[in-house]
This record gives sequence, structure tokens and C-alpha cells, in this order.
Amino acid sequence: MPAPIQVWTWPTPNGHKVHILLEELVEEGKPIPYEVVPVAIGKGEQFRPEFLAITPNHRIPAIVDPEGPGGRFPLFESGAILIYLAEKAGSALIPADPAARYRALQWLMFQMGGVGPMFGQYGHFANYAAEKLPYAIERYTNEVARLHRVLDKRLAESAFLAGDGYSIADIATFPWIRNPARRNVDLGQYPNVQRWHDAIAARPGVERGVSILAENQRQGTMTDAEREIMFGKTQFQAR
Amino acid sequence: MPAPIQVWTWPTPNGHKVHILLEELVEEGKPIPYEVVPVAIGKGEQFRPEFLAITPNHRIPAIVDPEGPGGRFPLFESGAILIYLAEKAGSALIPADPAARYRALQWLMFQMGGVGPMFGQYGHFANYAAEKLPYAIERYTNEVARLHRVLDKRLAESAFLAGDGYSIADIATFPWIRNPARRNVDLGQYPNVQRWHDAIAARPGVERGVSILAENQRQGTMTDAEREIMFGKTQFQAR
Repeated sequence: MPAPIQVWTWPTPNGHKVHILLEELVEEGKPIPYEVVPVAIGKGEQFRPEFLAITPNHRIPAIVDPEGPGGRFPLFESGAILIYLAEKAGSALIPADPAARYRALQWLMFQMGGVGPMFGQYGHFANYAAEKLPYAIERYTNEVARLHRVLDKRLAESAFLAGDGYSIADIATFPWIRNPARRNVDLGQYPNVQRWHDAIAARPGVERGVSILAENQRQGTMTDAEREIMFGKTQFQAR
Repeated sequence: MPAPIQVWTWPTPNGHKVHILLEELVEEGKPIPYEVVPVAIGKGEQFRPEFLAITPNHRIPAIVDPEGPGGRFPLFESGAILIYLAEKAGSALIPADPAARYRALQWLMFQMGGVGPMFGQYGHFANYAAEKLPYAIERYTNEVARLHRVLDKRLAESAFLAGDGYSIADIATFPWIRNPARRNVDLGQYPNVQRWHDAIAARPGVERGVSILAENQRQGTMTDAEREIMFGKTQFQAR
């Protein structure tokens, strides 16, 4: 029995990507044993020295593989973790066919560089910031809509983002599309995204993945203390 | 002689990544023939149907490899293009050693999901937006500083982001660090980043890479017409 991989995480969209992949690997019959190490980001646990030793960026998720390349191997950035775990497992979730593989990487990058950061800025200005700035809210509302339209156009052509097969690109994107009300999005406006979302949401590995640590999911208005930890000067004191 | 790869591009940081990689492949003795197809984004050329046929996201860079996997192969997202071209060339810029390779992917993702989008938001609010919003400018000023600090911490440990060897992670990040005055950054505050920047800037492949289309680089204040094309409703009409 290999030593379990430590998954330092929290139930955010970036955390969910890794939870879902690990549970999909169970479904595929290629499980990687893992243990969850909760990092309560609203309480500032991402600034603890043992976490900073894994990732200087103090963001979840990060993993430590006790039996990685060269021995104990820490890795951060959800997109890199998805590639690492899927390749380690020999999973079809990173396609073997070269064209499908590069398309999976392309849409994974689209999620990492577009969907994640821009939906995150929407959340900041529309839901979390103490000051409500109409210009910024409008900017990111428009960008969230634009990115949904790009996904809808792609998903009009193929069942999944990389093509016929479900892949790490879908696993990376799905957590940012679920719970559309949080972004004031009506998925009915994007029928191909809706169809894709519903198919993924019904997968047993996804259902289990999104339930990991779900009892800790943030609800309601952010407190000033949380705001300070997440967006304030605390971030500049981490060494 | 293989048919050249078309590089649809413009002299922005994301464009420069691909230009630098292609010129570094020349230095490495593993050149991939290419031709530049300029896409003047300030004039709205990213909305031309022939470009939308390559990328539904209408963002540069994108490539078309006439001899890719399965034949003619279009690919967008700068991070995916770097992986594709480095692997196609069999280049050491994507390390063969597994630990170094995953670390390169980790820092590539850090650039794609952090440095690029956040520096981009700084540029929007500080340099491009017609309305000056102190809250947003301060938010992204802080985030730009924080990301420089993370890079400085990493580069205190190793010569390059993935380790001892220069990689696609450095090529992806360098174009966002050069010209620090545009982000009101004093690189002298980040001595490890400064050392890394200077070493990379002096490489012949990098010097040639950043000169591609350089005569078209945007200067000075953005006009209202450019603003409309880059940030306005034009984006929502592209189909």
C-alpha cells in the first residue's frame, strides 16, 4: 500500500478540482490513496509555516506526495496538480491521443488563466468587497458572461471540452460553473454549458468530490475579519 | 522542410512568450519554422472570422500547425502553446526529469493563473480604464507586489523557477516582469527577481523574441476607440 498523498485543501472551486479528480480516479479503478489536510483560509491557516513550506504562494490546493519523483514531492497550483495526479495514475482523464491531450491542456489553461481569475474577480467585487464599485462589477459581470459564451460555443461542437472524452479540462472548469446563482448567471442562457454541467454533476465521483469538507463551505456575507485575512495586509506579512 | 507553423500574435506579454520560445528553439539547435500573422488587437482584428475559426476566445496568441497531430492543428492559450512547441521540438525547455518537469508546469500555472491575470487587472485599472478607482488600483498594486515577493522567495532558492535549468516557466513569466515601470514596480526591491530578469534579458533568443512586431507596441494613453474594442461591447458581438 503506497503512503497516501497529503491534499492541503479547502472547499473552494480550486480545491474541488483536486477532490473531484481523486474521486474520479477511484471510479476509473486507478485510485491514488490520499488524506485531506484542511486549511481554513477564512481563519488564516494558509499562513502557517508548515503550509508556507509547501507553497510560497499560500494558496490552496497543494499536495505532498511522499513517494513522488525523487522522494517526498510537494506541488502547488491546481492545474499542475491535475496533470501530475492524472499522469501518476495513468488515467484516461489526461488523454493519450496527442491532439486530444493538447486540447485538454488548452482548455485547462483557459480555465486557469480566464475562468478562474475572472470569476474570482467577479466574486470579489460583487460579493466580498466592502465597497461596491459599479464599474468593476459591470466589468466582471461582462467577462463572466463572455467566458460562458466561449464555453457554450465550444460545447456546441463536442460533448466535452477536449472532445468526445471527459478530461481534466472539464474537471477544472466544472467547479466554477456549478452554483451559477453565486455569479448571478442563468445557465439556461447557455444550453450547451447546461447540458455539460448536468452530465458532470450526476457523476458519482463528482458528487463525492464536491462533498469533501462541504460542511465548511463559506455561507453568507464575509466578515471584516475574514476580509482582512483574505484580501488585507495579512498577506504581506507571510514570509 | 516542414511547412511553417502560423503564429497569430501581437507584441503583448502573452505574445512574447511564444516569440521567445520559438527563438530559443533556434538557439538550442531545434528550430521550428514559423511565420508571424499579425493580429492588431487595438484595431479589432481579433474579431475577424478567420481568427475566430482558430480560437473562440478571440485572444492572441494562437497557432496553426499544418503538420500537427492528426494533420492541421490549431491551438490557443499561450501556456498550452509553450508546452506543445517545446514537446514538438524535443526541447530541454520542458525538462525531461519528472520532478523538474512538474515544477516547470507548477510555475507555468502560477504565471497563467496569477501573474498574467493579476498584472493584467493592474494594467486595466491603473493605465487603461477611463475611470480611476482607488480601491481597485490599490487592490492590484498590492497583488502585483505580493506576486513579485513570491517569485523573489522562489528565486532565492534556485537559479530559475523550475530549478537549475531555464524552462518554459521562465519564458512565460519574463515578459510580465520586464518593463517594470509600466506596473510602477522597482525591481531593485526584489533582488533575486532582478538577477533572474537580467540573466534572461541578455539571452540572444530573448532579445530577438521581444523584438518581433515590436514596432507595433502600444504607447501612451489608450484612445476611447481602443478601449471600446478591447473592453467594450465589441467583445459581445463576436460570434
